[in-house]
Amino acid sequence: MEKQIYLDYQSAKPVDPRVVEAMLPYFTEKFGNASALHKVGDIATDALEESRAKIAELINADSDEILFTSGATEASNLAIIGYAMKNKNKGKHVVISEVDHISIHNIAKYLTQQGFEVSKVPVDQYGRIKLGKLERRLRDDTILVSIGYASNEIGTIQPIKEIGLLLAEKGIAFHSDAVAAEGLVPIDVKEKNINLMSLSSNDIYGPRGLGVLYMQKKFRINPIMMGGGQEKGIRSGTEDIPSIVGMATASEIMKKEMSSEIQKFTTWRSKIIDQILGEVPDSHLNGHKSERLASNAHIRFDGIEGESILLSFKDKNIAISTGSACTSKTLEPSHTLISTGLLHEEAHGSLQLTTGRFNTNEDIDAVIEAVPAIVERLRELSPIYASKKGAQ
Amino acid sequence: MEKQIYLDYQSAKPVDPRVVEAMLPYFTEKFGNASALHKVGDIATDALEESRAKIAELINADSDEILFTSGATEASNLAIIGYAMKNKNKGKHVVISEVDHISIHNIAKYLTQQGFEVSKVPVDQYGRIKLGKLERRLRDDTILVSIGYASNEIGTIQPIKEIGLLLAEKGIAFHSDAVAAEGLVPIDVKEKNINLMSLSSNDIYGPRGLGVLYMQKKFRINPIMMGGGQEKGIRSGTEDIPSIVGMATASEIMKKEMSSEIQKFTTWRSKIIDQILGEVPDSHLNGHKSERLASNAHIRFDGIEGESILLSFKDKNIAISTGSACTSKTLEPSHTLISTGLLHEEAHGSLQLTTGRFNTNEDIDAVIEAVPAIVERLRELSPIYASKKGAQ
Repeated sequence: MEKQIYLDYQSAKPVDPRVVEAMLPYFTEKFGNASALHKVGDIATDALEESRAKIAELINADSDEILFTSGATEASNLAIIGYAMKNKNKGKHVVISEVDHISIHNIAKYLTQQGFEVSKVPVDQYGRIKLGKLERRLRDDTILVSIGYASNEIGTIQPIKEIGLLLAEKGIAFHSDAVAAEGLVPIDVKEKNINLMSLSSNDIYGPRGLGVLYMQKKFRINPIMMGGGQEKGIRSGTEDIPSIVGMATASEIMKKEMSSEIQKFTTWRSKIIDQILGEVPDSHLNGHKSERLASNAHIRFDGIEGESILLSFKDKNIAISTGSACTSKTLEPSHTLISTGLLHEEAHGSLQLTTGRFNTNEDIDAVIEAVPAIVERLRELSPIYASKKGAQ
Repeated sequence: MEKQIYLDYQSAKPVDPRVVEAMLPYFTEKFGNASALHKVGDIATDALEESRAKIAELINADSDEILFTSGATEASNLAIIGYAMKNKNKGKHVVISEVDHISIHNIAKYLTQQGFEVSKVPVDQYGRIKLGKLERRLRDDTILVSIGYASNEIGTIQPIKEIGLLLAEKGIAFHSDAVAAEGLVPIDVKEKNINLMSLSSNDIYGPRGLGVLYMQKKFRINPIMMGGGQEKGIRSGTEDIPSIVGMATASEIMKKEMSSEIQKFTTWRSKIIDQILGEVPDSHLNGHKSERLASNAHIRFDGIEGESILLSFKDKNIAISTGSACTSKTLEPSHTLISTGLLHEEAHGSLQLTTGRFNTNEDIDAVIEAVPAIVERLRELSPIYASKKGAQ
């Protein structure tokens, strides 16, 4: 395969080679079961607890507030279903946002099948939640609000601090799926009054198949899987020590490098957005101009189909996407873009460019250079665009 | 740390270095999301499907009957809870065995909380299920029977073929947790009439944090986690491609090397059992003499406490256990040993020695040499043993 220019860091990230290096001894030498009562097991236990502390530090949590799961999907299932089931006697109303990741929407659907009521807070044209609209949806029987820290598609960052304050005042639990934001926004769970938070290891350049549920000390949830009672009885299954050590190493690296990375990504983002919007007529930025993830540029082109634009980039060995990989194989338009008020045909013509740790200036320049010609060629073939232009 | 002699392969296995080698490119280069629509994603999709085929081959399944999970615990939760929930209109009675892994017992407890009835088949003094006893527990409303392929503690192999035939005749679904048996017994799901089966990657020297649910084509289950709808909608969450490639490589190696490994382990097992039973008075074999895993020797010493024997071996840099690591930190005696008719004090004085791929003849000899002296010293300190001996 020819070298690919990869601007799809939101869908998957390579594991940092320093992380792989740290993991290696735990595959073959330090491979013990943390529950075993011998020295090989003790090494695993030590690695497990040291890793918990390193990850806690990245989000200003305490070590015993970190629970390991198989990924952010499981963390969010545990947080939302586990909290709802544990607290259903207090109320059966849960609030999520319209722009949450598809997994949160599917968890909410499951809750409604279990007799819960779920309200969705709408967003403005930039994908942002207005505090008043959230407040109007809170009821006496609302037990939990789950709002993604930032959109995994259009990159809009939510007013998490304001939401956290409001919910703390009302005594309602606050869960945030922070997968899109982690490593791109400094996250402080104490300052932001977050009670439950989902994190993914891969999104900070750690290995796949591992996530974390941050659970604030006084909070209690039900497990969703039964077993040997690991992770305080909340998440059974032998701990995946190599991956856990990997995520801990990734957290340490992120803590050191995040601020310079954010700076680098912000420069690239400005360059991508300014040049593409400047050079391609009838192109528009999706999401918020400033309250957006440093790595995310999400641009809409009138008269273009997502499918065809992806194929054109694939031919040019550029790896980008039109939205969430988790819904890429359905032909549905993005629920996030529809929530911001776009029409179906507008939602289909968008391009999501997300940068990451291993991109170079050359990658950015190559993509910026490729876009205008591809859009122009596709528009020539587009009956929608031609008729629209003719009508002007 | 000094070199440890490791005879606790049942609790955790090192990853085979050939497996690590195969995984490495998927961390840093071939890191795509299998749902992404570009070349980096295509490589991930190809790796995913090729891996499915390789794992299927090890158990004589079809490729599309392999579903990836975060481990055997999740696979068993999915199989049992997922099948029970999907089929509760057909009946609400489930049968497990008394010697199943603690996770199966905890899943069964959860089912009873959901309004199901669970019966447990007892075992004989060797830990084996008698077909007649199973048959007498089957009812018109029995929808599922879950019997572990072999005991993860005492190593007794169940009459899986006979159980499979019986259940196929009755039209009752058959799930087997095959974690203890995989790689130590050739498993053929078609020949054995198994409909649902849990496998763990690490138990064939693959990476942790990955398991497989084998699900026969016509069978249907409910998911237990909601999300992006990966794995046919049954198991959401971005696929962990490096680990999946690892488990596939582990399966290929196992397919080639299993029969010679079983031979090697069987020789070691005979040596361990014969020499220890021969040299240590008042010692007994737990489990079945011939219908047992090649890697497993499980020996009981009158008048000895599990705790103290473990500490003595720890001091000598020998890593062994008294039973399941998943219950090691409770002080409860093994439910498996109690099921075979042992008293609590007898159950406490057992030693589980499990060999594996990287053991040497020297490891086996060193352990055989260490046991008699340790037992003798502990018995000198044991009021129980002294009084028993005095009474003779």
